[in-house]
Amino acid sequence: MSAALLHADTISDALTRRLFEVIASWPIYDPHSHINPHAPAARRFDEILGYHYYTELAHSAGMPAELVDPALDPRQRSRNLAGWLDRIDNTVQFSWLTEIARVFHGFDDVHAPIGPDTIDLLYDHALKESPAEANAWDDRVWTTTGLEAVFLTNDFDDPLEGWDTSRYVPCLRTDDLVLKLDRPTTSERLRNTTNLPVEDIEGLKNALGVLFDRFVSKGARACAISLPPDFQAVAPDVTRAATPIRRALHGLELRPDEARLVQQTVFWTLAQFCRDYRLPFDLMIGPRRDVYPAGVAGGRDLYDRRVSLHDYHELFNQFPDVTFPISTLAPDAAPELVSYAWIFPNVVAMGHWWYSNLPAFIATDLRAKLQAVPQTKIVGYYSDAYKLEFILPKFRMFQRVLAEVLAEDWVRGRGWSEERALGLAERIMRTNPKRLFARGE
Amino acid sequence: MSAALLHADTISDALTRRLFEVIASWPIYDPHSHINPHAPAARRFDEILGYHYYTELAHSAGMPAELVDPALDPRQRSRNLAGWLDRIDNTVQFSWLTEIARVFHGFDDVHAPIGPDTIDLLYDHALKESPAEANAWDDRVWTTTGLEAVFLTNDFDDPLEGWDTSRYVPCLRTDDLVLKLDRPTTSERLRNTTNLPVEDIEGLKNALGVLFDRFVSKGARACAISLPPDFQAVAPDVTRAATPIRRALHGLELRPDEARLVQQTVFWTLAQFCRDYRLPFDLMIGPRRDVYPAGVAGGRDLYDRRVSLHDYHELFNQFPDVTFPISTLAPDAAPELVSYAWIFPNVVAMGHWWYSNLPAFIATDLRAKLQAVPQTKIVGYYSDAYKLEFILPKFRMFQRVLAEVLAEDWVRGRGWSEERALGLAERIMRTNPKRLFARGE
Amino acid sequence: MSAALLHADTISDALTRRLFEVIASWPIYDPHSHINPHAPAARRFDEILGYHYYTELAHSAGMPAELVDPALDPRQRSRNLAGWLDRIDNTVQFSWLTEIARVFHGFDDVHAPIGPDTIDLLYDHALKESPAEANAWDDRVWTTTGLEAVFLTNDFDDPLEGWDTSRYVPCLRTDDLVLKLDRPTTSERLRNTTNLPVEDIEGLKNALGVLFDRFVSKGARACAISLPPDFQAVAPDVTRAATPIRRALHGLELRPDEARLVQQTVFWTLAQFCRDYRLPFDLMIGPRRDVYPAGVAGGRDLYDRRVSLHDYHELFNQFPDVTFPISTLAPDAAPELVSYAWIFPNVVAMGHWWYSNLPAFIATDLRAKLQAVPQTKIVGYYSDAYKLEFILPKFRMFQRVLAEVLAEDWVRGRGWSEERALGLAERIMRTNPKRLFARGE
Repeated sequence: MSAALLHADTISDALTRRLFEVIASWPIYDPHSHINPHAPAARRFDEILGYHYYTELAHSAGMPAELVDPALDPRQRSRNLAGWLDRIDNTVQFSWLTEIARVFHGFDDVHAPIGPDTIDLLYDHALKESPAEANAWDDRVWTTTGLEAVFLTNDFDDPLEGWDTSRYVPCLRTDDLVLKLDRPTTSERLRNTTNLPVEDIEGLKNALGVLFDRFVSKGARACAISLPPDFQAVAPDVTRAATPIRRALHGLELRPDEARLVQQTVFWTLAQFCRDYRLPFDLMIGPRRDVYPAGVAGGRDLYDRRVSLHDYHELFNQFPDVTFPISTLAPDAAPELVSYAWIFPNVVAMGHWWYSNLPAFIATDLRAKLQAVPQTKIVGYYSDAYKLEFILPKFRMFQRVLAEVLAEDWVRGRGWSEERALGLAERIMRTNPKRLFARGE
Repeated sequence: MSAALLHADTISDALTRRLFEVIASWPIYDPHSHINPHAPAARRFDEILGYHYYTELAHSAGMPAELVDPALDPRQRSRNLAGWLDRIDNTVQFSWLTEIARVFHGFDDVHAPIGPDTIDLLYDHALKESPAEANAWDDRVWTTTGLEAVFLTNDFDDPLEGWDTSRYVPCLRTDDLVLKLDRPTTSERLRNTTNLPVEDIEGLKNALGVLFDRFVSKGARACAISLPPDFQAVAPDVTRAATPIRRALHGLELRPDEARLVQQTVFWTLAQFCRDYRLPFDLMIGPRRDVYPAGVAGGRDLYDRRVSLHDYHELFNQFPDVTFPISTLAPDAAPELVSYAWIFPNVVAMGHWWYSNLPAFIATDLRAKLQAVPQTKIVGYYSDAYKLEFILPKFRMFQRVLAEVLAEDWVRGRGWSEERALGLAERIMRTNPKRLFARGE
Repeated sequence: MSAALLHADTISDALTRRLFEVIASWPIYDPHSHINPHAPAARRFDEILGYHYYTELAHSAGMPAELVDPALDPRQRSRNLAGWLDRIDNTVQFSWLTEIARVFHGFDDVHAPIGPDTIDLLYDHALKESPAEANAWDDRVWTTTGLEAVFLTNDFDDPLEGWDTSRYVPCLRTDDLVLKLDRPTTSERLRNTTNLPVEDIEGLKNALGVLFDRFVSKGARACAISLPPDFQAVAPDVTRAATPIRRALHGLELRPDEARLVQQTVFWTLAQFCRDYRLPFDLMIGPRRDVYPAGVAGGRDLYDRRVSLHDYHELFNQFPDVTFPISTLAPDAAPELVSYAWIFPNVVAMGHWWYSNLPAFIATDLRAKLQAVPQTKIVGYYSDAYKLEFILPKFRMFQRVLAEVLAEDWVRGRGWSEERALGLAERIMRTNPKRLFARGE
């Protein structure tokens, strides 16, 4: 399995190729993913094909959602999906799939593409049935990928036990706390995991304190949240918030203005905890959830592009000691993040997220970041992966654009030495994420 | 007349040129235009120069609007405009003009540009006075362009008679019905063309049914509308709409909220007819009409860039069986369409429209579409032309960008064969528009 | 000092290099800056390093604001900042700094970068202590840069005396009048500089008349203002505005709607004076002031990207005889300016401003302008500089992108001769700004 060279053969420019090969040889430090640390790599090819990119793209191309119903037999589900892949084989997401098949399963797609005729072969190769096989496979994918560490997305009531947290780094995901506090399941989970009553704003703060204690003691490196495009990160009137929060914690209905105040108050409180526990607060700004309810799982969210970081300036001002690594969902909002990271010391430009994660958008955005954001404040990339196998092709995709940009603009365009350009690359790929998420240690 | 090679001599990269030459050799299937089927090609060069791009750009460059007054003698109008062309000869729109002169009129602009000194020569060459001459010219332009079919934009009361509808494909344009129902002329036209009273919402539905029957029986392939940037495509309260619709149909004044409700109700009703008649519903989103009232005809509309497809999600959800080919006017809104076409099965990314129809914008947008939208859901291009002559240079402009993108990113960058890349090109240029507008036949 | 060749050695394409060398040989006509005509070039290197780009980027990279406190000894301030430059040496702004050091101070940064070890050497070289030395240095920088004229930004109460206004061209900056009329200092300054009472709207108009008389008689070429993203340029109800304006002029508090009306009224009145005095009205649209109050001087402003030129259409319509050179701050708003300049005769696309002034954004924006805006209505670039030394590296940065775009798209892509491409370049770099700001003379 020769993974470091993935892409190298299709880079015709010698300088770009040299830069790419060096960058691709570095261990990967991946500061955001959805990996399950109990089953990091796929046990069945269905878990690869089940990545929402493939189900949603195939569904968008006409595949009935029933064909990938979670209740189906996994092999059948894979066969079903395989029949629709020819409609999406132009996409960059499909290229990750073929690269996984090539690198991890020795699959030669040149003569026979991934599809109905080949899916069983691939399925058989990817099957890891026994725990021993699965563990060996996790190690193999980890090693082939050259992973150093990968950050997780942990529910607030995750016990965080049973894995090596220096490899699989816990992160506290707080969407439910901020956006769904008024759902009985949320307060119930909060009470269960903290063994605290959590009846009011004070109880909520106590419970959050327990969570932060637990997460930090288990090696958590970030608090994270995704926020809708109209969220206003303003300092809440805490006195006014007391009653709505009490109502929310008891599952009582809230008026829209109360619901907004509850969200803002919990969010602001989390920022205070991030400050006190020296945790970066990842803000992933933009998604509208369930815009397309009839979509497949994971493929129902979109965004409203009318969004601005100006709605966050009060937060950035009030918490100068909290680092805010920021991802924006709307591709056309990317230039604004460049400007905010250029001005605010605590705003970090973080990766290329989801609908923005296309080479077409990355090329200009990365150039702009490297042209105007201090090099200490750019986190080049994260995988956002659900299964380990995806980390490699996604990082290679980014690293290739990075090599092209550095070759063209910095080495050729600005006369930098290759060493200096590689120093800049190392900074954004490794030094920065390791330092920014080190909690000041 | 060698049209297929237009552009080929200025493509220096051999691979790009090979791809371009193949793509340019295919018959053109043009799914949106404003061609007049009774006089498709220009009878006078004034009809070429009268394209709003030239009059509005020249006017923007300082030409008084009176110089292109419709009441002037056509030759004089052309002479007047010719005196201002040197101010706009940098534009891509001007390049279409020289290409038309070259390809269709044997005009060599290298030694003498189109301008005051040459306009009479060109005018004389382009003059087609007799019906026989005109018909022969229509055929010649059609053949030289390699046209297979071109879609029209027909008023709802167009009798749709007198031409070959397999070549000139009718499309029902519905702006007046949705946005101007309260103008007496609209209801008057509706009554005249349907011979129905059209007094209330039921009468309106009956009349629309007559229109859909007529259009579909005449081979219509799409319903189309352009919508302002603040239009909200939400399900109307039809009960509440009854009175305002009655008032609108009788030319009575409407409050703003009533006017909005009328628009939403007619729009929603059209979507229902599109579903029932299996017609795609082209949405052309963004224009603000008459922003510059002192402009020349066709050159008065602009847009407000604060627009989002999120305002249409209820429509996409409620009409899963209707195909919505979508064009966005604001260039910076293009990435959002990529995302929505990637998720919603019934959203199709359609061409590059008007203010977005510049190679500078097409390059990134096309890359993004090809990287993230299922290949079955991209309609590469349409001409939006008013005269047949424009179809060729506009398509060549796009095809050239397409060849560049495929050469650079798919063949070189991803290692695809040229055949496979051309397969993708054929899909978006021919297969998709022919299938998507086939009404499921 | 060989400045014309700055950048030429890093342009590998021969055609681009030839175009660049010609463009770079032309005298620079710079239609917007913040140069102090009494001390145009830097007397100390601290004035170079003190440009807000360096202090704000270093501050964003972690430097405490105290290290560049204006009260510090200038040499110490430079030493302090020098220690943080390695964190921002990737930025294009840093490249201007090294270019200044190279071109104007013979500083060889290849073997020793600008930093703690070299700052004293550079500081000593740049020190101009006596008035004679300073004057000679102004001349030398002027000559090396090949400057023909540079526009200033003058407060409305600037006496405009003591310099050659054909070289340093006065421009009336009106932010304070429009946005801060209700501050006692503003009305006070207005009374002092006009010797008029200025008690009401009529008094205000009289005072503005005095200012316009003075500025025009001193050779002013433009009126300029920067406006926040939510400013609405609509015709005010002048009758309703009378009382709020009187209150503002007496320092009384205004309700938000009154404050807005006062701003709109003063703005509209300025547009009338621009019409009457035939002065272009530079609109610089977008900044939100003091978004980051703890930032360094000049580094506290950002923007809200939700902005549209549609909010200005009434202005453009009402003042057809006023030229509006427009700069947009949000990079993603650039395409809208292309469209508005393409339609409105009085809208001119002006340069690349502040957060938009990065090659990554300029490349696409410049292509779009050159593809769709009449060539007579594009003002290629302005420096926005505070010290003369910055004009050269900033113009070279732009000229390089211009040469690349012309080589690739116009000479190679469209088959233009180099002469013709250079004609287009000369138009946007020299002919247009000289003509558009000539007040119709």
